[in-house]
Amino acid sequence: MLNFDYQNRTRIIFGKDKQKEIGAFIKPYANKVLFHYGGQSIKKSGLYQEVVDSLNRENIEFVELPGVQPNPRLSLVYEGIRLCRENGIEFILAVGGGSVLDSSKAIALGVPYDGDVWDYYLTRKEADKVLDVATILTLPATGSESSDSSVITNEEAQLKLGYGSDKIRPLFSVMNPELFFTLPKHQMANGACDMMSHIMERYFTNTLHTDVTDGLCESTLKAIMKNALILKDDMQNYDAWAEVSFAGSIAHNGLLGLGRMQDWACHKMEHELSAIYDVAHGAGLAAVTPSWMRSVYQENIGMFLQFAVNVMGVEASFRDPDAAVLEGIRRLEQFFADLGLPVTLTELGIEEKDYERMAKKATWFDRGPERPIGGLKKLYWQDVLQIYKMAK
Amino acid sequence: MLNFDYQNRTRIIFGKDKQKEIGAFIKPYANKVLFHYGGQSIKKSGLYQEVVDSLNRENIEFVELPGVQPNPRLSLVYEGIRLCRENGIEFILAVGGGSVLDSSKAIALGVPYDGDVWDYYLTRKEADKVLDVATILTLPATGSESSDSSVITNEEAQLKLGYGSDKIRPLFSVMNPELFFTLPKHQMANGACDMMSHIMERYFTNTLHTDVTDGLCESTLKAIMKNALILKDDMQNYDAWAEVSFAGSIAHNGLLGLGRMQDWACHKMEHELSAIYDVAHGAGLAAVTPSWMRSVYQENIGMFLQFAVNVMGVEASFRDPDAAVLEGIRRLEQFFADLGLPVTLTELGIEEKDYERMAKKATWFDRGPERPIGGLKKLYWQDVLQIYKMAK
Repeated sequence: MLNFDYQNRTRIIFGKDKQKEIGAFIKPYANKVLFHYGGQSIKKSGLYQEVVDSLNRENIEFVELPGVQPNPRLSLVYEGIRLCRENGIEFILAVGGGSVLDSSKAIALGVPYDGDVWDYYLTRKEADKVLDVATILTLPATGSESSDSSVITNEEAQLKLGYGSDKIRPLFSVMNPELFFTLPKHQMANGACDMMSHIMERYFTNTLHTDVTDGLCESTLKAIMKNALILKDDMQNYDAWAEVSFAGSIAHNGLLGLGRMQDWACHKMEHELSAIYDVAHGAGLAAVTPSWMRSVYQENIGMFLQFAVNVMGVEASFRDPDAAVLEGIRRLEQFFADLGLPVTLTELGIEEKDYERMAKKATWFDRGPERPIGGLKKLYWQDVLQIYKMAK
Repeated sequence: MLNFDYQNRTRIIFGKDKQKEIGAFIKPYANKVLFHYGGQSIKKSGLYQEVVDSLNRENIEFVELPGVQPNPRLSLVYEGIRLCRENGIEFILAVGGGSVLDSSKAIALGVPYDGDVWDYYLTRKEADKVLDVATILTLPATGSESSDSSVITNEEAQLKLGYGSDKIRPLFSVMNPELFFTLPKHQMANGACDMMSHIMERYFTNTLHTDVTDGLCESTLKAIMKNALILKDDMQNYDAWAEVSFAGSIAHNGLLGLGRMQDWACHKMEHELSAIYDVAHGAGLAAVTPSWMRSVYQENIGMFLQFAVNVMGVEASFRDPDAAVLEGIRRLEQFFADLGLPVTLTELGIEEKDYERMAKKATWFDRGPERPIGGLKKLYWQDVLQIYKMAK
């Protein structure tokens, strides 16, 4: 196990009807907030009105900023920073999924900062002061509700970059499984895949002596798979949503990766897909992850055998470990397909002519010294290109 | 899954040599601390001097209060409160195991409080202001390094009572597995049992749809058992201590019990043993837990079958579940015995003549309306007496 230093301040308020108390939860911290959200869905569902009513009840003023899109845009972040400054706002209420949360975190970084907030994403420097962010989650997937990260797309530069700091963890997050009942099925599937990827990026490691986190990763993966399959046939199943959404927070709150070298190649390869093609993050991950596994497993076959046996239920086959590993990967791919997720880049509409450009962007090949990606096995742009081709 | 509201602010600083930086970790918060510890062991090991050197290097003043004993005493808590008040101290550095931490938390509660700090333990009322506590852990067991609880023995009243509040979670805890190399083997065994009990008290539940936390509990239990057996033969195994100590924090930081009705009967039954006989908490738990299981399992045989299969590796036997459950309990008891733990009250020196008195104390039978214990199955004093008899 490696040394680690971990703190996660986010309070999770979990359960039925909790969103109706949002004003009371905010009141100790602010009397004026930026109410940041996506589009019409929270109005149709009635959540918008519940939030407004609760804020009014507590005499909390708010300025609205709707319009967050999937793969949240830097331009809207600038708009949010301007609104907060003009209105003297120091607290951001994000009502939405990961995109709204990530956009809110970027605004929270940018308001007290003299320079361009994009600096943080380019340089990853530590932030000094950050506004508080609180959330009502409407789509469990990214884990952003208790994570230290924010991913923003600079649409002009066609760059999708992440920033991480304990300071951007939300102050609190409200999670009510009932709010997920009306999600389209493909968003549930994308979310489940994103959560699983957050775990797998931490799980696949060359670090030895990681029994505790191995077990946490494996059991959380199994809980997600079991319950996502229940949701596939019953999108209003409270208990299954409770499991999946709770697991989604655990998947990305940092705990499962403590003391282990992590990988994150799949996330970086996927970010190139969604930066150019604007595909859903979870769908992109489903398309690249099995090919990544087939490409790298021989680097650490024991780790992938453990995955096949402990997570995918493959019978341990020590005399032909390759077969067991490949069966594990096949089952994972089949699980994605069962959820209706794309398992090839072609299904996502991504054209082969762009593979090389994406592979070079993923490793910063065109922007200074190449930065190979992946903790378990270092991948250079040619390796990434190969994986894209395998995922064709 | 039940609703929950969870926050754990404790920062865990984990790894080699981290205790040498304790002054730098404290410096942002305080220039004067109460340095609270047990006895000679930290002087013999050199840890005392490392702490003093680090505090001096950062110009942090300190007042020492040694003398914490296992089952920490209220009288020393009073002494600590007096010292803090006299010296204007608002930060407590606990260097030790769970007893030192729990004593420190009690002092942290008592200093800003006008009344008698024992009020909190008697009434469980919410605290208003609490001093900050930071720790260097020297004995992984109680999980107090990131838990919300403190257990104090009022020696005059022969009462051992717990208090819980998010406000008494430590600000940060330093955990270096190397500090555990010199522990006596029985303390490792007691610690492992205490951790396992913290998980089992949460795990055994009638709440349905708890896949995520079921899995977290099961995998953490298995990691503790595997690594405690390694330590039994090799008390200087860094990796095994890393697993066990990390697991000990997870066992009691609250995560594993989220959304589930919890039990806690075994802890309450054990507290009566150690309140009167001053036995080690972990040893007392080993002696009562298997008998508790045999006494209550028919209340929820599915839960105990799951434990037998998923934790103790018993082959699922659906046509004779009782046999599988009892085999699981037998394996747990055998595991305790393998670690050198007592598995009967007689081995602990506890006499049958005291069983009834302890059973009545456990359920407050003598102090007002009886308070049955246990979330999975309510136990009245006669039930507790029966379990003590089974554990004879």
